[in-house]
Amino acid sequence: MKKPITVAITGASGNIGYAIVFRIAAGDLFGPDQPVNLHLIEIEPALLALRGVEMELRDCAFPTMNNLVATSDLAEGFSDADCVFLIGSRPRSKGMERSDLLSVNGVIFKQMGKNISDHASKDVKVLVVGNPANTNALITLHNGPNLQAHQVTSMMRLDQNRAVNTLAEKTRVHSSAIKNVIVWGNHSNTQYPDINYCRINNAAAFDVVNIDWYKEIFIDSVRKRGAKIIEIRGLSSAASAASAAIDHMRDWALGVRDNDWVSMGIYSTGSYNITEGLIFSVPVFADEAKVSIIDDLELNEFSQEMIKQSEQELLAERDLVREYLP
Amino acid sequence: MKKPITVAITGASGNIGYAIVFRIAAGDLFGPDQPVNLHLIEIEPALLALRGVEMELRDCAFPTMNNLVATSDLAEGFSDADCVFLIGSRPRSKGMERSDLLSVNGVIFKQMGKNISDHASKDVKVLVVGNPANTNALITLHNGPNLQAHQVTSMMRLDQNRAVNTLAEKTRVHSSAIKNVIVWGNHSNTQYPDINYCRINNAAAFDVVNIDWYKEIFIDSVRKRGAKIIEIRGLSSAASAASAAIDHMRDWALGVRDNDWVSMGIYSTGSYNITEGLIFSVPVFADEAKVSIIDDLELNEFSQEMIKQSEQELLAERDLVREYLP
Repeated sequence: MKKPITVAITGASGNIGYAIVFRIAAGDLFGPDQPVNLHLIEIEPALLALRGVEMELRDCAFPTMNNLVATSDLAEGFSDADCVFLIGSRPRSKGMERSDLLSVNGVIFKQMGKNISDHASKDVKVLVVGNPANTNALITLHNGPNLQAHQVTSMMRLDQNRAVNTLAEKTRVHSSAIKNVIVWGNHSNTQYPDINYCRINNAAAFDVVNIDWYKEIFIDSVRKRGAKIIEIRGLSSAASAASAAIDHMRDWALGVRDNDWVSMGIYSTGSYNITEGLIFSVPVFADEAKVSIIDDLELNEFSQEMIKQSEQELLAERDLVREYLP
Repeated sequence: MKKPITVAITGASGNIGYAIVFRIAAGDLFGPDQPVNLHLIEIEPALLALRGVEMELRDCAFPTMNNLVATSDLAEGFSDADCVFLIGSRPRSKGMERSDLLSVNGVIFKQMGKNISDHASKDVKVLVVGNPANTNALITLHNGPNLQAHQVTSMMRLDQNRAVNTLAEKTRVHSSAIKNVIVWGNHSNTQYPDINYCRINNAAAFDVVNIDWYKEIFIDSVRKRGAKIIEIRGLSSAASAASAAIDHMRDWALGVRDNDWVSMGIYSTGSYNITEGLIFSVPVFADEAKVSIIDDLELNEFSQEMIKQSEQELLAERDLVREYLP
């Protein structure tokens, strides 16, 4: 039998947590022949709900599920973790200022960084899903002295998948025929969905869709898809966010398929003149768990301007959390 | 590319529905190389919620997802369906008599039977998950003139998986080392979890666990696991029920693995002196989509008595729904 891979998940009893843990236990992340240990982590007030998730997981009798731990203790939860999904965060409540939001999450993600650094596997891969994801990832990284810059990423895959689906619906092709979509920047309304290098059934995207539709409808529609889901469901995206998190981690660990790119919030090393040290979404390729930034694309003026706007927002977020960045 | 398989799901925006549709779309039912068409069915008041599920499904950009239909029209929903999951049913509300419950569901499942019979694929496989599942399956079958008896089954797999897990926890072995558990009868508190033929790491179960524990703790614990989950979660089992439904349908369509048995509510042909024509859970083997009842086990007196009790309950249920059984 293969050696089990240990996957730790915070916010495991929340809506995204409930949607992701069963899929990972079923083998959707690492395949049907790879046993996984699941470490489910919650804050203390959610431990009873977490116990319910644990009972249901055991009731599934999944062949691929090895050890199962449910805990509020971060040291135990991150112990020997190979992959970490940081899903739990404090959502914005009514009347909360953006600075307050960043600050309460600063406290949380400082603890995450420290405990992952102290207890997880040396080569741990960390994916931050909880919002504000890019800045939470930055805080996690800065508080984990044993973590290297490339080990902490933030999720942009839901935006990428939404962009792909928006193009698929528009052009009536299957989503798998759409490649090299990019979503740049912050997982927020300043994100920049970019189809300048996109291929639709191997044709350049702009041979298939109109540039005015792209600028006037598409970008806005991808940015606001999350709000639209909330409007329709009365709840924010859960299963699609969980699915995107699995996509992100699988492509990172096992490699990006079909010569495609994927978008990840990743430590900026200065490519495209993006300020070094921000966690910024760029197109990447991954192979044998090594992520390489696709850093040689030519960007037109529109793209440069859009990327600049998202960068400004992330710089402002960083300024608001300075105290959590040792 | 393989020809897509069409899967129809009622109650698709409910808690079990939300837990199952993403897993099926991701390939957990038929594997990563088999495209599926998903037909999501809901009652009219739930169509907005269903639209939310549909949007999120599209946002996943699953490679295995082909056509996606979301509808309240049963003819459209069951059109050419190869597999049907009947999840939607009326749950028991406060003060509702058992006869009322059977009756409101009688109306629903009469429509299911008629529409599946008229519109689904000739070889459709129907799994009833919505409670009272066995009797709902009986009504479905009786109202589908084109359906053969073996095409309509009810779910007992959640009970089987719970029984396996209860043994795994007790004996500290992995659930995959536990084979040939049976859960007989009705998916209700009269169900009979039977380990007389069970093997644990290839040893007879009663060489590993004590018969008093089995009779006094185990049976009751499996029967009451659902209530326990509700007590802990404040919600009934959703993801584990969805997972069991996938297990049931996958083993039916693709075959039972590892020379094991599985328990399904299936049309009784009189084996074990169970009244012919009831939908009763028995151990079955499946190969190339053909289900065979394991009909040659010797049953001790205790087992015969337990099975008789569940049979009595199902006969009483049948009497209460006579008007829906043409």
